[in-house]
Amino acid sequence: MSASDPAVTDLLGLVAYGELLAFDRLATDARLAPDLRRRAALSEMAAAEIAHYRWLADRLVALGSSPDEAMARYAGALEAYHDSTEPKDWLEALTKAYVGDAIADDFLRAVAEGLEPPDRQLVLDVLHDSRYVEFAATEIRAAVAADPKVANRLSMWARRLLGEALSQAGRVAAADRGGLTTLIARREGGEDVPTLFRRLTDAHTARMTAAGLNN
Amino acid sequence: MSASDPAVTDLLGLVAYGELLAFDRLATDARLAPDLRRRAALSEMAAAEIAHYRWLADRLVALGSSPDEAMARYAGALEAYHDSTEPKDWLEALTKAYVGDAIADDFLRAVAEGLEPPDRQLVLDVLHDSRYVEFAATEIRAAVAADPKVANRLSMWARRLLGEALSQAGRVAAADRGGLTTLIARREGGEDVPTLFRRLTDAHTARMTAAGLNN
Repeated sequence: MSASDPAVTDLLGLVAYGELLAFDRLATDARLAPDLRRRAALSEMAAAEIAHYRWLADRLVALGSSPDEAMARYAGALEAYHDSTEPKDWLEALTKAYVGDAIADDFLRAVAEGLEPPDRQLVLDVLHDSRYVEFAATEIRAAVAADPKVANRLSMWARRLLGEALSQAGRVAAADRGGLTTLIARREGGEDVPTLFRRLTDAHTARMTAAGLNN
Repeated sequence: MSASDPAVTDLLGLVAYGELLAFDRLATDARLAPDLRRRAALSEMAAAEIAHYRWLADRLVALGSSPDEAMARYAGALEAYHDSTEPKDWLEALTKAYVGDAIADDFLRAVAEGLEPPDRQLVLDVLHDSRYVEFAATEIRAAVAADPKVANRLSMWARRLLGEALSQAGRVAAADRGGLTTLIARREGGEDVPTLFRRLTDAHTARMTAAGLNN
């Protein structure tokens, strides 16, 4: 795989734009926090995304690509996802950060298996941040414990997020010029696409249960 | 000065809330950026603020104080400043980050001189980030060079920011229970308040000139 492999540029651009948008949305959602401590926690989640963005953008430049151009390809698909899943309150915002981002991360992690080691490791490093997963799951569980009706509302919301995430994956595929497909095919010992999507759905189910939500 | 000195808590709380709000506003303003590179740059300015917030909040906890309570005292004054200075476009956002934040930083740096070394150093570390000052000044100079009419518009905006910042300082003083006043009085070899304000205004003038704006 050469340094200028368009498949590498495509995936790094997709992940980079995902980070930039996630920053934007988490920073906005932080205003929904019921107190300053929680607001700061979500703001820090946002800040972690932008640090990851910087690593990816620097790598794209090192590969001789323009981060702006690499990101532009998938901008429409990612923005459509966020526009269609605007949280109405703090718990919806947390659930979106918890389940929505996790689905996207699982998908991107799987695609990254088709990259060679340095870029694969970069994407894996960027996607993994369990500290905030714990924070979100703890908050959701506490809200469900305090008011069981919350579980139904958030479970419905999480199912909608799953549906929107899957249709986002379809939009990303439509915007793709072959790079991501190449990476998925290139993974050694990787599952086929239907198996991959089943695994993503199973992981989603496990996360729902861990946060006290039902499928 | 004991660890639980309310003057210390007051200043750290004020600076911490300033960081949290600056994060929020810069993250919002990043959407005004004309391209993704500049949007990322402003988002990274925002992320730096939230990292500083964390240092301050951790220090407040170490001093036995609640960051939420320490911040609440000045919340109204700081929010009023931001609500009255909402940028309408990218250049206004940059000018606000460049001249508005600098005035606040100069003021807080002066008050911090009344703190003992560890907390004084913490506040100075948090307030100093010249990388973004350079970025903003360069952008503003380029816009003025491309269209001299921009200089008049941004110069007026900067004067309004100065006025709002000074009246914000008045609101902060009104919310103060004596902590900041104590710190200002405690500075060894520090100027009196009128001299301090003259110094702040002079520094503002120098910044305006450096960015190609007029007073």
